[in-house]
Amino acid sequence: MGTAGVAGAGALWTASAEGGVTAGREDDNASRAIGTSKWDLETPALCVDLDRLERNLAALQAQMSRAGIASRPHAKTHKCPAIARLQLASGAIGICVAKISEAEVMASHGIGPLLLTTSNVTPDKIRRAMRVRTWNKDFVQPVDTEANARDLSAAAGEAGVTADVVVDVDPGGHRSGIQPGAPALALAQLVDQLPNLTLRGMLCYDGGTQHVAGFAARRAQALERLAPAAETFAAMTRAGLSAEIFSGGGTGTYNIDHETAGFTDVQAGSYVFMDAQYLAIGGSSGDVYTDFEPSLTVVTTVLNATYEGRATTDAGAKALTINRPTAIVVGETGMAYSSGSDEFGTIQYDGPSRTYKVGDRLEVIVPHCDPVVNLYDRVYGTRADRVETVWGIAARGQSQ
Amino acid sequence: MGTAGVAGAGALWTASAEGGVTAGREDDNASRAIGTSKWDLETPALCVDLDRLERNLAALQAQMSRAGIASRPHAKTHKCPAIARLQLASGAIGICVAKISEAEVMASHGIGPLLLTTSNVTPDKIRRAMRVRTWNKDFVQPVDTEANARDLSAAAGEAGVTADVVVDVDPGGHRSGIQPGAPALALAQLVDQLPNLTLRGMLCYDGGTQHVAGFAARRAQALERLAPAAETFAAMTRAGLSAEIFSGGGTGTYNIDHETAGFTDVQAGSYVFMDAQYLAIGGSSGDVYTDFEPSLTVVTTVLNATYEGRATTDAGAKALTINRPTAIVVGETGMAYSSGSDEFGTIQYDGPSRTYKVGDRLEVIVPHCDPVVNLYDRVYGTRADRVETVWGIAARGQSQ
Repeated sequence: MGTAGVAGAGALWTASAEGGVTAGREDDNASRAIGTSKWDLETPALCVDLDRLERNLAALQAQMSRAGIASRPHAKTHKCPAIARLQLASGAIGICVAKISEAEVMASHGIGPLLLTTSNVTPDKIRRAMRVRTWNKDFVQPVDTEANARDLSAAAGEAGVTADVVVDVDPGGHRSGIQPGAPALALAQLVDQLPNLTLRGMLCYDGGTQHVAGFAARRAQALERLAPAAETFAAMTRAGLSAEIFSGGGTGTYNIDHETAGFTDVQAGSYVFMDAQYLAIGGSSGDVYTDFEPSLTVVTTVLNATYEGRATTDAGAKALTINRPTAIVVGETGMAYSSGSDEFGTIQYDGPSRTYKVGDRLEVIVPHCDPVVNLYDRVYGTRADRVETVWGIAARGQSQ
Repeated sequence: MGTAGVAGAGALWTASAEGGVTAGREDDNASRAIGTSKWDLETPALCVDLDRLERNLAALQAQMSRAGIASRPHAKTHKCPAIARLQLASGAIGICVAKISEAEVMASHGIGPLLLTTSNVTPDKIRRAMRVRTWNKDFVQPVDTEANARDLSAAAGEAGVTADVVVDVDPGGHRSGIQPGAPALALAQLVDQLPNLTLRGMLCYDGGTQHVAGFAARRAQALERLAPAAETFAAMTRAGLSAEIFSGGGTGTYNIDHETAGFTDVQAGSYVFMDAQYLAIGGSSGDVYTDFEPSLTVVTTVLNATYEGRATTDAGAKALTINRPTAIVVGETGMAYSSGSDEFGTIQYDGPSRTYKVGDRLEVIVPHCDPVVNLYDRVYGTRADRVETVWGIAARGQSQ
């Protein structure tokens, strides 16, 4: 119960140390930070509290065990092989990747099984996907049109591989995927019939529902929007098609998705880090989403404190993005942080719990973790504010 | 006249070729793109049209020649040593950098003179600045408090160098800088008296005015907000202080700043690339700012065209940021591009000049160039849509 499938913190840490400083030259310098205080890092510095990270990993797996489904965490959030390794060690059945370039980085770091969540539609990228498949038997890729299925089959044949494929079904956002029902079923049948492809099941990611505020509203929308996909999945099974994967969901619906019949695994990403956006969606018993702990912060330095009612820091849009809600200053009240300037952050006081002077450091919870992590080459793993490891964000910038 | 100080396109291109593929291993693959069509690049791909870039360089310098002041372009926009080299070849008197880490990258690529525009306030960064100064006689750094001036003087002494310093004066945005008038004058006098520091003049960057819509309104605000700094600069001169640098301004005020008495050089950044934000500010004769040409685009591929009235691309927030105005599809009308999703772009049709099918490529002008460039490791330099060079964005992610 609870922690089934999750190794203890000690075991997690072994895996973490093993997957530690992953990059080359550049991180030779960064690794000198190990053992120092995070408050002495050059700022802006991306930090992850390892105790909180490990509790988040355990909390997700505890819910998976209770619900009898699996997790397949999404690496688009962290882009970091060392964290993917921790997720697998905590009991995840695989790792999701958003782009073929992200798949290549994760595969080259030995991470798998891998589920790609975005279709490749150009000949070059399809060839790249088949090369990943050549070296990784557990690589699964999506398809959402019949023409694309034929292209994949031809490319798999040319590469001399059999490609594992899931049908990407649209939950209603119309962003990607094929329509549930007859179109999806026909596509699944085509994949099943085409040479060089193996049908593995279905993908249906309902991104739009993850941030619906309030548990009840979120649950209602999630179940409603997944219902057509669930019917399609049942029809695939009835038709004798291979339907072992029904993957979707995320940090906002991880404790709802198991209610959808046939659902197999949750693609949660942000749960490892949390952010201002997810804190604001509210949990099953309150306005703040407390199922997971904010583990990711950016440490920043005050550059200017000359002017009344405000201070300027060194973490602006290039360090925090301009997503909303804005960054949250950890441990303080009565101040608003804005990262609207490219190079500078601004703190506006309004009955603040403290004020800052030049050179002071503070840390903020980031607005939205995925695009913030994508700005940094490394993340400092800390415990009780001491740097314990430095992880390369090896897939940073891999949006291709 | 006009192009004084600007080499012809041929000469620029020589400089460009010389500063070409700057990075190491990673760009060995990227450089294979040279000679291919930009429409065959893996997407999302950051591209710069070299003809337009060169015309932008020439247009800035032409205005500088007319106005009798200089340009000191800001590298925070491009973070690319090859482009900094082109700016210097076009007649710029130096290059600005936003952070000490950016200064280190530019200096290590042989770029200079360098003017740092953000004060260093922590001992480590101050030491790093003195190390840059050790190897670069033309490195100038800012100061905006008396305490910081004393710290710089002490660190310069320890490093065995004399540090060149400008006083950073606040134009009223209260983001950085000291108040103009008596406080700034007193700081200049202190810098002049402290050992190991050489006063070089003043920095006053009015970021808030660059995007004021309409030339007349922008001109009025720029001149009004720079007036106190200009008075301070005159007082510095009267006091016998070294006042050879009065640097500020940007792409929005490059043809206004010379009207401020004493002003010496414009820190324009975005003029090389342009973006949706600058197009919207309007020029001296119209609603669109046409002084510089949009040279920077992101090429993206359509991933999904299943649903009525829309298409999905592979360039979302991780490829374009979420700044506004949103990205502009080049050459088309009746469609709106949104990069609100991390991994996907969305095109909404409204009487479109064309529609897209899966696999089609298109290019967009980016919302705000600086943070978009900061997402990419390289930019493809194209001429007539052919890749002519690949430039490493060597200072990408250097926000420290």
